[in-house]
Amino acid sequence: MKKVILIGAQGKMGQAALTGLQKHHVITASRSGNGTDYQVDITDKKSLKALFEKVGPFDAVVNTVGYCEYADFTDMTDEQWDATVQSKMIGQINLVKVGLEFINDGGSFTLISGILNVKPIPMAIADATTSGAIDTFVRCVAHELPRSIRINVINPTVLEEAWDVYGDMMPGFQPVPGTLVGKAFERSVDGFITGQVIFVDA
Amino acid sequence: MKKVILIGAQGKMGQAALTGLQKHHVITASRSGNGTDYQVDITDKKSLKALFEKVGPFDAVVNTVGYCEYADFTDMTDEQWDATVQSKMIGQINLVKVGLEFINDGGSFTLISGILNVKPIPMAIADATTSGAIDTFVRCVAHELPRSIRINVINPTVLEEAWDVYGDMMPGFQPVPGTLVGKAFERSVDGFITGQVIFVDA
Repeated sequence: MKKVILIGAQGKMGQAALTGLQKHHVITASRSGNGTDYQVDITDKKSLKALFEKVGPFDAVVNTVGYCEYADFTDMTDEQWDATVQSKMIGQINLVKVGLEFINDGGSFTLISGILNVKPIPMAIADATTSGAIDTFVRCVAHELPRSIRINVINPTVLEEAWDVYGDMMPGFQPVPGTLVGKAFERSVDGFITGQVIFVDA
Repeated sequence: MKKVILIGAQGKMGQAALTGLQKHHVITASRSGNGTDYQVDITDKKSLKALFEKVGPFDAVVNTVGYCEYADFTDMTDEQWDATVQSKMIGQINLVKVGLEFINDGGSFTLISGILNVKPIPMAIADATTSGAIDTFVRCVAHELPRSIRINVINPTVLEEAWDVYGDMMPGFQPVPGTLVGKAFERSVDGFITGQVIFVDA
């Protein structure tokens, strides 16, 4: 049994991840802190550090959050780009950087991207671009991590559980059940792979 | 003959691009403005807009600049990440956004990334991550560009002309001549392809 910090536990992706973490001691965190063990804002390094300090030694961090703005490229403002970059991209990078100071030897980080960087759709250029950045970051930074620490990223298509929200903007996409995405998180946390982009698509 | 704006014309990559643009009317720009027709700072939207306004109607923009900081992941500061993101990633995205208001129908943008996102080396995590972002941006945003405007990105390995500077940090890499990279820029500007990452590697 590993001690796993799950960030974004209240969201649909967090609930999907949770299905793959049943054998572990899962400590939950979310932006609001409502219904979770801890509050954390991944865009704030101090908030991340405070979370890791409060939790104490842990074996894995699973992140399922990354805020994105959606707009046509020609309409997307500097502020929308910045909000997306600071959360989905830099937020996750900082999560790893700060987490490295606290995670146990042989621990793992599992980040989140999303299928729109390989299956583009209208309105999603910031989501796609930052997903591409995170997929690349994981593939490359894995070579640098000390103490046998691993890192992977889950790149899922839309969840069945979120199809009512996203279905209209994703014509021709086949949603997958959260439990299948949960398997990907499990494979990252419980396997020995590192530097992998684990696609979950149908 | 097309009217092509070449940004970073004084650099080694700019000189490489220039070898592929011989049949065109090339207008040069650089950060300092020394030895080029215009001065431009790609991290400043106002500077980009001023360049395009001064040049008047044009058919293509070729960008060969994107500042990157180099450090081990665990040592890289927030400021180093930000400098890299604001230049190589957001700078190039803004170049396209601002340029779209001025470029002729059927025009093209050619951006620059670099091979380290697929061949990682120590110290280059910010370079690699932002190259991954730009490669993804180009593949996805191509679907959104209006008026038959195209976009591609050149993803080259190290130039022979720059081997004295980068060779020590890139063991086992085979540099390529600038004229070969120039062919890639030519293929982007003079072809009909769009949304492509044009790798130039040996």
